[in-house]
Amino acid sequence: MSRAIESARALVGRPWQELDTPALLVDLDRLEANIRQMAAVARDNGLALRPHFKTHKSVAIARRQIVAGAIGMTVAKLDEAEVLVDAGVGDILLANQIVAEPKLGRAMALAARARLTLAVDSREGAAALSGAATAVGLRIPVAIEIDSGLRRCGVLPGDAVGLARAIADLPGIALEGVFTHAGHAYGARDREQLAQFAVGEAGAVVEAASALRGLGIPVRTVSVGSTPTAELVAGRPGITELRPGTYVFYDAMQVALGSAHADAVALTVAATVVSRPAPERAVIDAGAKTLGLDKGVHSSELIVGHGRLAEGDGVLERISEEHGMLRIPADSPLAPGDRVRVVPNHACSVGNLGRFFVGLRDGVVAEVITIDAAGGVH
Amino acid sequence: MSRAIESARALVGRPWQELDTPALLVDLDRLEANIRQMAAVARDNGLALRPHFKTHKSVAIARRQIVAGAIGMTVAKLDEAEVLVDAGVGDILLANQIVAEPKLGRAMALAARARLTLAVDSREGAAALSGAATAVGLRIPVAIEIDSGLRRCGVLPGDAVGLARAIADLPGIALEGVFTHAGHAYGARDREQLAQFAVGEAGAVVEAASALRGLGIPVRTVSVGSTPTAELVAGRPGITELRPGTYVFYDAMQVALGSAHADAVALTVAATVVSRPAPERAVIDAGAKTLGLDKGVHSSELIVGHGRLAEGDGVLERISEEHGMLRIPADSPLAPGDRVRVVPNHACSVGNLGRFFVGLRDGVVAEVITIDAAGGVH
Repeated sequence: MSRAIESARALVGRPWQELDTPALLVDLDRLEANIRQMAAVARDNGLALRPHFKTHKSVAIARRQIVAGAIGMTVAKLDEAEVLVDAGVGDILLANQIVAEPKLGRAMALAARARLTLAVDSREGAAALSGAATAVGLRIPVAIEIDSGLRRCGVLPGDAVGLARAIADLPGIALEGVFTHAGHAYGARDREQLAQFAVGEAGAVVEAASALRGLGIPVRTVSVGSTPTAELVAGRPGITELRPGTYVFYDAMQVALGSAHADAVALTVAATVVSRPAPERAVIDAGAKTLGLDKGVHSSELIVGHGRLAEGDGVLERISEEHGMLRIPADSPLAPGDRVRVVPNHACSVGNLGRFFVGLRDGVVAEVITIDAAGGVH
Repeated sequence: MSRAIESARALVGRPWQELDTPALLVDLDRLEANIRQMAAVARDNGLALRPHFKTHKSVAIARRQIVAGAIGMTVAKLDEAEVLVDAGVGDILLANQIVAEPKLGRAMALAARARLTLAVDSREGAAALSGAATAVGLRIPVAIEIDSGLRRCGVLPGDAVGLARAIADLPGIALEGVFTHAGHAYGARDREQLAQFAVGEAGAVVEAASALRGLGIPVRTVSVGSTPTAELVAGRPGITELRPGTYVFYDAMQVALGSAHADAVALTVAATVVSRPAPERAVIDAGAKTLGLDKGVHSSELIVGHGRLAEGDGVLERISEEHGMLRIPADSPLAPGDRVRVVPNHACSVGNLGRFFVGLRDGVVAEVITIDAAGGVH
């Protein structure tokens, strides 16, 4: 792996076409524009921005987000939080449930070094966090996860009060607020339905927050998140925080959902044509182990194929582990050895499969950005 | 990452339930039985066995396969070959096309250190290999890839002669034989169709080999591969080599295809229940970034859900990146903090997403097996 990173670093100043493939290319101008744009959405609506680290898992990109105005980061799991705390990031929401050892101990070790807010959606979970925090003499901020329609984790809005009372009775934890993730928005068939999901997303957390405040329970943070709903939900009353992730890169799914124009997509996958066995078929060296198999995170049917060429006509009609089968026009000049760039369906899967991004300016290698927490680990 | 490996190593001698999750568990008794069984299939049919490394990407498991009788390994890409050559494995088939720099140079560096057979399916590819080998004064064995129905890379059997003649005219490369991969067999609807695919797989390479030999061109290796077809194809006349990969672990797809009984599956994913938000739903901490999104590699429709519990009733009905939504009976006792094991749909995706396997004997941690070439890299 270090071999591959060193080879990429040796190409700073050279055109991307000289990179070995597959390679994950990031257009730095687009990345920075996307980061600025979402920071402006948050600022213009008076909201805190806490971007999700899971998309890029790269400390170097998280730093850019924080410099642009983010108050801290959201993570999906402990190894992501550990990487960020090691890098000096001081304010992290772990938007997932930590309910058992050894994760409780790892979370407490982090909470001693940074402001780590943990999620709860059950009394057992709250009791587990309370026990772990009390054992090490800490008082940990916790946020109640609200289910706004995804039907994953989280309590329904009407059940937040009961859980908040349980939290109030427990030592070692203190209620910070409520949060939700409207992941079902990825299944929206059009912008109108997406807007409805955004209304529901905001409505669920605001309902929960209002019920808590009505009982005199302070709720400092009312947090929503997801790139497709971010701009739609940002102006809803009662929200205090946005947690989008994919916006740094965007991808074919986001373009299909209308979250971004195609020319905002910052992440592409460089590949080499390895075979042209038939007029309508070229095979590239990027398959499911590079691009993932996402056709839409949850239930989106807006995506055709496994990715498409960034330039020219070509769709990845099929992929196997290390091959991508491009359907191309019979008169396409693509031949073995040619380099192409693919717009992936889902950026978060691509980053998780990779080890580093290659940052480009005007198609020239400018920097190598390590992916610091990739892979299916804890 | 080293933290996670060290934590797992510290649990040698302890029950798997004490591991942090998600964790990739390998039942070592089953692994070794699967390795022995496939070695016996090859031996009983007078065939060489060259297992595919891509499934586990682990030197420690490759060594077990070679000790059990494999003549060398098959790999999908150069970084896998580099890992194996670094570990002293001396005979490798790279079953993919190397057509351009910098891969040509990397391949030649390896070919100077080990017997590396490279694949060709075009005159441009053959010329590229010839040029690279000649430049460094090497003579490289090459194998013609035959398309036996997958419609990925490869020439049709009738086109092998033309390509072989082109190879014969080029310095620096020498024809070793022909090979094919019947990946379309994963789309078989039943055993009968699978057997037909195996007949076609063998038929395609034997046809090509016969045509070459008829012209006086020596063909030493006639190689077929894939776990579903391995036992069906092994007895076909004219075959010399088998290249299955997934058989070390098997998985839900292989069980659905009838390649293995459920009690041969050696790889499971340990996860923790993090939420029980509804009677029929438990959420675990293993999602698409651990299990992959495979529902069948190519077009299999034999799989329901994204994995199922190894013990008890539960199917992963939906997964998001770090969550798995288990559909369970309403009276299931599963509660936050409980450990479960999931049988994955596709073992090769799981290994590629992981960083290490935890080898178990009778449910007790026995060894930690690093995954030496994981990820979407080159």
